[in-house]
Amino acid sequence: MIREWTRGLAALSLLLIGTAGAWAGNGVVVYQSDFGQKDGAVSAMRGVAIGVDRDLKLFDLTHEIPAYNIWEGAYRLFQTIEYWPADTVFVSVVDPGVGTDRLPIVAKTRDGRYVVTPDNGTLTLVADRFGIDAVRIIDTKKHRLAGSADSATFHGRDVFSYVAAKLAANKVSFEELGESLPPEKLIHIDYKKPAQDGKALVGAIPVLDVQYGNVWSNIDKTLVDKLALKKGDKLKVTILKAGKPVYKGTAPFVDSFGDVPEGKPLLYLNSLLELSIAINMGDFAGKNKVSSGPDWSIRVERP
Amino acid sequence: MIREWTRGLAALSLLLIGTAGAWAGNGVVVYQSDFGQKDGAVSAMRGVAIGVDRDLKLFDLTHEIPAYNIWEGAYRLFQTIEYWPADTVFVSVVDPGVGTDRLPIVAKTRDGRYVVTPDNGTLTLVADRFGIDAVRIIDTKKHRLAGSADSATFHGRDVFSYVAAKLAANKVSFEELGESLPPEKLIHIDYKKPAQDGKALVGAIPVLDVQYGNVWSNIDKTLVDKLALKKGDKLKVTILKAGKPVYKGTAPFVDSFGDVPEGKPLLYLNSLLELSIAINMGDFAGKNKVSSGPDWSIRVERP
Amino acid sequence: MIREWTRGLAALSLLLIGTAGAWAGNGVVVYQSDFGQKDGAVSAMRGVAIGVDRDLKLFDLTHEIPAYNIWEGAYRLFQTIEYWPADTVFVSVVDPGVGTDRLPIVAKTRDGRYVVTPDNGTLTLVADRFGIDAVRIIDTKKHRLAGSADSATFHGRDVFSYVAAKLAANKVSFEELGESLPPEKLIHIDYKKPAQDGKALVGAIPVLDVQYGNVWSNIDKTLVDKLALKKGDKLKVTILKAGKPVYKGTAPFVDSFGDVPEGKPLLYLNSLLELSIAINMGDFAGKNKVSSGPDWSIRVERP
Repeated sequence: MIREWTRGLAALSLLLIGTAGAWAGNGVVVYQSDFGQKDGAVSAMRGVAIGVDRDLKLFDLTHEIPAYNIWEGAYRLFQTIEYWPADTVFVSVVDPGVGTDRLPIVAKTRDGRYVVTPDNGTLTLVADRFGIDAVRIIDTKKHRLAGSADSATFHGRDVFSYVAAKLAANKVSFEELGESLPPEKLIHIDYKKPAQDGKALVGAIPVLDVQYGNVWSNIDKTLVDKLALKKGDKLKVTILKAGKPVYKGTAPFVDSFGDVPEGKPLLYLNSLLELSIAINMGDFAGKNKVSSGPDWSIRVERP
Repeated sequence: MIREWTRGLAALSLLLIGTAGAWAGNGVVVYQSDFGQKDGAVSAMRGVAIGVDRDLKLFDLTHEIPAYNIWEGAYRLFQTIEYWPADTVFVSVVDPGVGTDRLPIVAKTRDGRYVVTPDNGTLTLVADRFGIDAVRIIDTKKHRLAGSADSATFHGRDVFSYVAAKLAANKVSFEELGESLPPEKLIHIDYKKPAQDGKALVGAIPVLDVQYGNVWSNIDKTLVDKLALKKGDKLKVTILKAGKPVYKGTAPFVDSFGDVPEGKPLLYLNSLLELSIAINMGDFAGKNKVSSGPDWSIRVERP
Repeated sequence: MIREWTRGLAALSLLLIGTAGAWAGNGVVVYQSDFGQKDGAVSAMRGVAIGVDRDLKLFDLTHEIPAYNIWEGAYRLFQTIEYWPADTVFVSVVDPGVGTDRLPIVAKTRDGRYVVTPDNGTLTLVADRFGIDAVRIIDTKKHRLAGSADSATFHGRDVFSYVAAKLAANKVSFEELGESLPPEKLIHIDYKKPAQDGKALVGAIPVLDVQYGNVWSNIDKTLVDKLALKKGDKLKVTILKAGKPVYKGTAPFVDSFGDVPEGKPLLYLNSLLELSIAINMGDFAGKNKVSSGPDWSIRVERP
């Protein structure tokens, strides 16, 4: 019986050692890319991570970032990062510069999440909203999938997923990854900040709520509160492309879609508490030929 | 040695306590929505759940329900729910009424699975086929992601995923979620039931097998058996939209696609054992301009 | 105290027994199909596997193989299989012959991975590159989801996912699955092998890097090395469909996209170290109307 106990405890020790790595580093990796999911690229990244540690938990943010669209990658990261637990490791690969001298980095946010990415602007909005505490430049001579040295075009698999897995599984520390880079040296994409302009609010249209055609601005609740709106108050809305009006209209400020009849426009705070315009059960962006990006801006004011 | 055993057992106890939550509630959450996967919405839902319990197992049913199409959400849930183990928690968010007074609920099916969803008809087919034992109205004052009170448009993240995760991780009981709602008060979408009409069988076309263009009816095996068909027997098929014939033809009743030559039509029992019509290696729905939904019906009979 | 230890050890034994299955067979299942993810088919497969063992780790290769395109399924498997750990079980269901007498099989690769699939050519490229050690024909009388005998059209759910889960969870051994089939009897799809032709290299275009429009050949690094190219050396490229030139041009051989200006063509070794042609930040295939498959070939030589 004693012998059986001993055996049991030996097995237990192995079990505890076996799971220790996964627990320490949180073990959660979240992937984003512009790869789509029609081919094997995303699966190869996942396989590399599971090869590092079978107990990692792998999730997707999205792989449908439009090809090469670093700005949209930056936005999706900003949109979701705070909903994941501390210590979660994000991999973001929108990487038109793969194989050039753009830096492969890992950034640590002020609230303790990690982003593994090429340094190409992907961190712009996360840095502005949540803050970056420290950055390491990945030493790809040391930290790279074994046998991948001849491959120059798929760092998502050979470097980023591999390093993220090691970090999440606690098999390498942040500090061991490579030299430090001052966070203020990260590449930053310029964009229009939201502001009050007399009695109006102005801001950018960083992104669309693509599935429904809702138009999201970056005018946040703090600014909106300055208009002291009551539910149902109407606002004049102008949407501009390169400074030229594309849409002019009026819409009530309400809580949600069902507060206006089907087919009617509404202004509301979206799920990030930023001012947005939509049509209840309709496609505002499609109907009014509105899109998003650096060229697009929005202006709202009382009539 | 004794001291080492004690330590080992202390560690064991922690391990057992640590995993207890996950085991008790099954720990499996399956998501469905009309969000698509191009943006961060699905990822935010997943992050909230992993924040509740890192050991949850998260899966997707689909996020490609056409926008606002509650009926199709109801069908996909009906199509797949029985293939998941008892105690699995489903989240279904096709929610055009988000932010209005439609009820956020959790339903418990007769065979012990859970569905977290707005009460808007999503449960129609699961209720009819599998039965609902009990329903709770989620008390969103108590059960809601901390800090999300100002957000009115994303209950998928702030309420449904959060509550599903707590339930699956055994951190809240079904009964604690809120007041009871009698299952017969759930919103129910009206649809044509399958029936025998003289020597013919008639039914609805609830959905297409979209990837291939196969047309699925709701005429089940029990009804089909009444025709006492032998493999290869030919049937006259009429497909109608709003009562007007869109397709008339004849097809043999066989086991599977390869039982007819490429390009030829066939009748067969689909993976839910319901009568369907397809073209071997072809797109029946596309070729014959057939679609699905409340307007569409089908009639089959011996020639 | 002794009593508590005994209890602890009893619990431990249960724990060890409980997890034993998952550990032994690696517990990782990777799915590929042409089902898309708009309906419930993939979810039903996942549910069946989790019903076999809740601790399995399920991943996707892709479900966007074009309908019935066995060749592309073969390629995606070849492209990714080596990045997953030994003992991983793959399920590949591109199965136009479902319900006919095509064989349901499990193949074991030389390096110890498993593929569960209909025998229809899906294993062509994995067999040629990595080697198949042994094949078993699944005895579907014995190994099939309980209650699924009346369903003839969804072996992905009823047979392949079910068997893969049992194998990955160590609940059935490879040898128990059914009779042995000599690997050389597997169905093999014919394709053009890469070769040297005088001073030129010729090969097939098995697939496109669809997301970006890059064109991948099967001319591997070993062959390319024979041209003794230096970075920047220019090559004449001819792409042919059914032997007729579709594209003629010249491009430099470089490491990666950023080595040429935006909008310019480049030749490079792709992530599988096979010669490819692309446009930096552009869509080579779209612009030049190039596609992939048995009809397409490529020829490169020094000017």
